[in-house]
Amino acid sequence: MTTHTMRRPDDFHVHLREGAMLDKVVGYTSQSFGRALVMPNTTKPILTGEDAVAYKKDILRIRGEEFQPLMTIKLVRSTTPTIIREAKAAGVVAAKFYPEGVTTNSEDGMPNLADSHPVLQEMERQGMVLCLHGETPGVFCMDRETVFLSDLSAIANTFPKLKIVLEHVTTFDAVSEVSALPDNVAATITVHHLFLTLDDVVGGMLKPHHFCKPIAKTPEDRESLLDVAMSGNPKFFLGTDSAPHARGKKECASGCAGVFTAPVAMALLVDLFEQHGTLDRLEGFTSEFGARFYGLPLNEEKVTFTRDPWVVAEVVGDVVPFKAQEVLNWR
Amino acid sequence: MTTHTMRRPDDFHVHLREGAMLDKVVGYTSQSFGRALVMPNTTKPILTGEDAVAYKKDILRIRGEEFQPLMTIKLVRSTTPTIIREAKAAGVVAAKFYPEGVTTNSEDGMPNLADSHPVLQEMERQGMVLCLHGETPGVFCMDRETVFLSDLSAIANTFPKLKIVLEHVTTFDAVSEVSALPDNVAATITVHHLFLTLDDVVGGMLKPHHFCKPIAKTPEDRESLLDVAMSGNPKFFLGTDSAPHARGKKECASGCAGVFTAPVAMALLVDLFEQHGTLDRLEGFTSEFGARFYGLPLNEEKVTFTRDPWVVAEVVGDVVPFKAQEVLNWR
Repeated sequence: MTTHTMRRPDDFHVHLREGAMLDKVVGYTSQSFGRALVMPNTTKPILTGEDAVAYKKDILRIRGEEFQPLMTIKLVRSTTPTIIREAKAAGVVAAKFYPEGVTTNSEDGMPNLADSHPVLQEMERQGMVLCLHGETPGVFCMDRETVFLSDLSAIANTFPKLKIVLEHVTTFDAVSEVSALPDNVAATITVHHLFLTLDDVVGGMLKPHHFCKPIAKTPEDRESLLDVAMSGNPKFFLGTDSAPHARGKKECASGCAGVFTAPVAMALLVDLFEQHGTLDRLEGFTSEFGARFYGLPLNEEKVTFTRDPWVVAEVVGDVVPFKAQEVLNWR
Repeated sequence: MTTHTMRRPDDFHVHLREGAMLDKVVGYTSQSFGRALVMPNTTKPILTGEDAVAYKKDILRIRGEEFQPLMTIKLVRSTTPTIIREAKAAGVVAAKFYPEGVTTNSEDGMPNLADSHPVLQEMERQGMVLCLHGETPGVFCMDRETVFLSDLSAIANTFPKLKIVLEHVTTFDAVSEVSALPDNVAATITVHHLFLTLDDVVGGMLKPHHFCKPIAKTPEDRESLLDVAMSGNPKFFLGTDSAPHARGKKECASGCAGVFTAPVAMALLVDLFEQHGTLDRLEGFTSEFGARFYGLPLNEEKVTFTRDPWVVAEVVGDVVPFKAQEVLNWR
């Protein structure tokens, strides 16, 4: 096979940043994806509908209307049901919960979800999706996601009509729990977590460009992600969590978490699914399940991938992309 | 208490490197320790008695005779019983086994210990200590030490008179196994593994200066190291594995493993044991158990630590030391 044609994919979790970095990276996302759910943890966080509208304008100023950013706000201590209502009216599709201090720019996150019940109630009423960074702070890094799962099931039970996405799942435990919970709960899977284990971060030389949150887990955990991503289970869909950091913020004494996968995400997925003989399942994972969960129409446009090996750049601007300098088969 | 006087300690595992780096770091070891077991995995490895004698001269040229380096050779494919005999005659006290490719400069290590039985037999006969980097290559990083333990017990059973040191233990499993094996098996514990868990490497920001092999493990593993180090069990003694790497080799896209603890090791241990109310156990751990296991006389000299807070340097030459820029209580 030398080409593969499928429905244009969406990315249900991406960091586009602001200013010069936004300029540099947004094109990689807009060229691969019809839509992308844009995370609100910018340096100046996106907290309200007004913030989201302004941020969306910034994004579209660079990329034009053919690419559709799906906007989110960040849940913080000061978020109110009114803010949720206004954000929904302004077109915001989801609100993101970060446990305090657990990842990049999460210092002002809510301490726990119990504090925000009136907010969650309003989100349920408004049909706004709750996106969860599912790690419990203060727990050993390899166990943070698993420990968080009891919070997830508690919220899912309390708000049975609230749509909940457990973002960037990394463990067998999370896959099992999301599979078992009702249909209002789904999960995103990143590209890099389909490729990496902790061994790829600290098992040989230290690899800061493989360092991300949640940290990549065991080979068995990775296998469970691969299995479910290729299973056709509509509760699991692509959210790349592509997260650009300047090289100097990664290769330093105190490195930032995040893997910049936007330039390679779809090429890697086509290759991976093809190698596993599941290329027919890729469209569901990247182009259907997420849109359906979010209640969005499927992209009409088709895209064609060609088997035509290319070498990933060493750097994109000053960001080192995932699989830098490696040969990928598809473009 | 403002002073603590004890027998001068020894370090039964240190990397002194060569050339300019040796010049820079050896003083930190010789100022704290009466003797130090010097690892042979220099860029040009120490493979024979002749190599060891030349390396020892280099070390003593810089520090003079009051500091006593205990020399080792590296076990490689070409090591023979004759090399062992000649090394012993030249004063070498131990030979180090590195599983192939498992840590810094271990690319020429032996693939497995079974290949070296005649060599181990000769070591047993000569009373040369076998030092083990106890990790099985190809295994998930958190499990490498535990998987290696079956090799350890096999060697200990096959060579009941061979003195074996499992170096830099990091797990509850290793502590249990070494405790259970006969008296010919001991273990060293580093200073940094008494302080760090995987959380201190990848749990927050990425910390390359906490990155080491074996990788720091879980909080429960660390607790078991603290417990046994402070227990008075003579099978466990100090080997710092102090391992200097230039900052640029740590803060980069592919970082070296190793923590440079020589400038702070004893100050940290006095503080740690004092905080746990076990200061009376420190002398055994640092100044008696190792010497006795190696069949060496105890150091006669006494050293006195003073409670007098000081700030650890940001860099020593171009090496970032453990606890850089932090305040330590003892000197």
